[in-house]
Amino acid sequence: LAEVWALTKGLLGASRIAGLNILAEVGFSYPKAISFAGGQPSETFFDLEYWLSTIPVFQRELAKVRGSDEATAAQQLAQYGYVKGIINSLVAEQLGIDLGVTATPDRVVITSGCQEAMALCLQALCPDPRDVVIARNPTYVGLTGAADCAGIAVAPLDLEGLTFATALRAKAAELAAQGKRPRALYVIADFDNPLGGVLTLEDRAAILEVCAQFKIAVVEDGTYRMFSFDENAPPALATLDKEGSVIFLSTYSKTLCPSIRVGCAVIPVSLFGDVAASRALTVDICMRKGFGTLNTSQLNQAVVGGVLLTERMSLKMLVQPAREHYRRNRDALVKALSSAFTSDEGVSWNYPQGGFFLALDLPFAFGEAQMRRCAADYNVIVMPMTFFSLDGSQSTRVRLAFSNLTTEEIAEGIKRFSAYVRKCVQQNATDAV
Amino acid sequence: LAEVWALTKGLLGASRIAGLNILAEVGFSYPKAISFAGGQPSETFFDLEYWLSTIPVFQRELAKVRGSDEATAAQQLAQYGYVKGIINSLVAEQLGIDLGVTATPDRVVITSGCQEAMALCLQALCPDPRDVVIARNPTYVGLTGAADCAGIAVAPLDLEGLTFATALRAKAAELAAQGKRPRALYVIADFDNPLGGVLTLEDRAAILEVCAQFKIAVVEDGTYRMFSFDENAPPALATLDKEGSVIFLSTYSKTLCPSIRVGCAVIPVSLFGDVAASRALTVDICMRKGFGTLNTSQLNQAVVGGVLLTERMSLKMLVQPAREHYRRNRDALVKALSSAFTSDEGVSWNYPQGGFFLALDLPFAFGEAQMRRCAADYNVIVMPMTFFSLDGSQSTRVRLAFSNLTTEEIAEGIKRFSAYVRKCVQQNATDAV
Repeated sequence: LAEVWALTKGLLGASRIAGLNILAEVGFSYPKAISFAGGQPSETFFDLEYWLSTIPVFQRELAKVRGSDEATAAQQLAQYGYVKGIINSLVAEQLGIDLGVTATPDRVVITSGCQEAMALCLQALCPDPRDVVIARNPTYVGLTGAADCAGIAVAPLDLEGLTFATALRAKAAELAAQGKRPRALYVIADFDNPLGGVLTLEDRAAILEVCAQFKIAVVEDGTYRMFSFDENAPPALATLDKEGSVIFLSTYSKTLCPSIRVGCAVIPVSLFGDVAASRALTVDICMRKGFGTLNTSQLNQAVVGGVLLTERMSLKMLVQPAREHYRRNRDALVKALSSAFTSDEGVSWNYPQGGFFLALDLPFAFGEAQMRRCAADYNVIVMPMTFFSLDGSQSTRVRLAFSNLTTEEIAEGIKRFSAYVRKCVQQNATDAV
Repeated sequence: LAEVWALTKGLLGASRIAGLNILAEVGFSYPKAISFAGGQPSETFFDLEYWLSTIPVFQRELAKVRGSDEATAAQQLAQYGYVKGIINSLVAEQLGIDLGVTATPDRVVITSGCQEAMALCLQALCPDPRDVVIARNPTYVGLTGAADCAGIAVAPLDLEGLTFATALRAKAAELAAQGKRPRALYVIADFDNPLGGVLTLEDRAAILEVCAQFKIAVVEDGTYRMFSFDENAPPALATLDKEGSVIFLSTYSKTLCPSIRVGCAVIPVSLFGDVAASRALTVDICMRKGFGTLNTSQLNQAVVGGVLLTERMSLKMLVQPAREHYRRNRDALVKALSSAFTSDEGVSWNYPQGGFFLALDLPFAFGEAQMRRCAADYNVIVMPMTFFSLDGSQSTRVRLAFSNLTTEEIAEGIKRFSAYVRKCVQQNATDAV
């Protein structure tokens, strides 16, 4: 069984990589196509020049904290630095104000983006061949890729009409019965990639209960939490966590820009009530960080630090225009879909309450070949959900990213996509005759 | 045997981490001590403000290459980017001009510093539990740490009077006989950390022969190659390589500054004559890079790219003052040692022809306790070579880093250290009576 598991995992890993390469290649092959494929943040709100101009603000703060002059602080900033980072207290403050996540600086590890934080957590939590990370199916490819690279098995969690917690409990029991150790649950509670869903307060509380019972650490990816379209989003799992089960991951790739490559992991005070275990986990994560990339670029940290100081530790005002843009785009997308498809066509979609993504169901299979055909003949690129599938399922679904497009592009793109869908439906009907 | 191996490795890993933590802690505990411990580049020559000012130069180049306007290029620069990097052609040119290493852009993978390049190469080259990386004993802790984190065994190579190649051939045969697979050799040919040695041309040629015979990939760390104190340093292993056995690693941490966190790996055209194997290795390294840190910060890449364009693809002029500083410091250190110790005291050292480090032999054991005593009572910190040992050997050696000190500090530091040494020798003589 272990061999089959490893083999399946290997194959899925290879197909995932192939999938990503194909996607990039399709993008290049059809440069004039409107693309709903990539989940990049909107470039309209990037202001790198301004963000770089705040470096001296952080330098002054660093000099103050270290009791040195500014020239020395500037030199230290260009030098090697602490593995754990140098903006931990600023980040901790921001997480509290903006995301409602309580963090003390000693529990924050600054990483080269959220991807590194995630990869390090998986490696530290799952060192044994029996250790398994559970993830909702479909899930973010970066999670499955990081697990594959570290030789960690990902157990797919299909809800199939159950609540998240009920499905999770069954999965944890099933894995344990197979001699596997479910050690981590990867979850994006807020506006997840790829589905664009959000967990209810009840779901969150119930998930924490199951995780505490089975001692499964929750790796909560908070990447999209700043981009809620409502004011009353439920608290993060990390905020609700009373047992010490949640490691919270955050990033400045979406609030500032991806080129900054600064993210973080927040380790709980005690891991399931065990303070020593939490400290050991922090040391383990730091060790892997140090021997992976030494430390996160202090230049990049200075940019984040400078912006945080300038913005008084909250990025709410700064991301406001971007958030409105994403909401407008969500509205434009849902409106375009509603106009394009009638209720009897077998096409349905969710209503994302935040984030960058919408999931759409089709009445036919849509994979790589269909993506290519759609790009070539209809000049629109959408992402097959199979790319995010942990088991080859999701064959009739697509992910639509609405973050880095204009409302005009969205309207035109959906017009083109609906023409493609209609053509396929007609074709299938003809074939069936 | 496998278990003993794993256990030893684990223990050494733990002690190495502990060693690094202790070192940092000692540095903090004795802030007034002169420290020969850390191998940081000299801060005197950092010019981050100027380097940052070259970003627009790279932006213009990017716009030209992509046929876009500068505003678009600026936005793309702030966005996610290619896993492999965006300054590959500039880096390839610089490696050829400055280091004599021929590289084409497609064979260059840009990484978050040399440490990441090294960790990725190890993981890609040694995926099987039987796979082993060979390293000269003592060796750079970053190598052993990265191997430990990935669960890869490091086989220590002790020369014991043999040539490097002869010892390597014996070790490769020994490992093969044990059912292990020596897959990689980690080597710093030029002014290595921690010994400050340099391999002769004969050594280099003979090593390549052994590696070709056993199909051992050479991971050549070129970190210190720009800091030769002579004009006639032998060519890099990568330059001499005819069989396709060398992956060359480089970094801008020492030529520019560590805060830049940009390094690279150059994959050979064909791996031991196999072009497909080389391509597969490149894909594997890129996959691990992508799922580890997505891509190297394009902001940081733009800084390196801007400087390279401004300096016409060569950093020789730019590092000239730093190189002279390091040479002056080497001279000051050797002079101070020669004045401090007479030839009959049992203290000896090498004469580094480049780089940041000198190795010194003592007539008594020098470990953590001695380091602390020396720091507390004599206000000077030196690094026990045991920290770099793969097997607990090297107990009477220390590493002296002369890179980030003034000549005055070096003179005073060695005065203090020699007083400590003399005291220890006297103490030992008294104890022996």
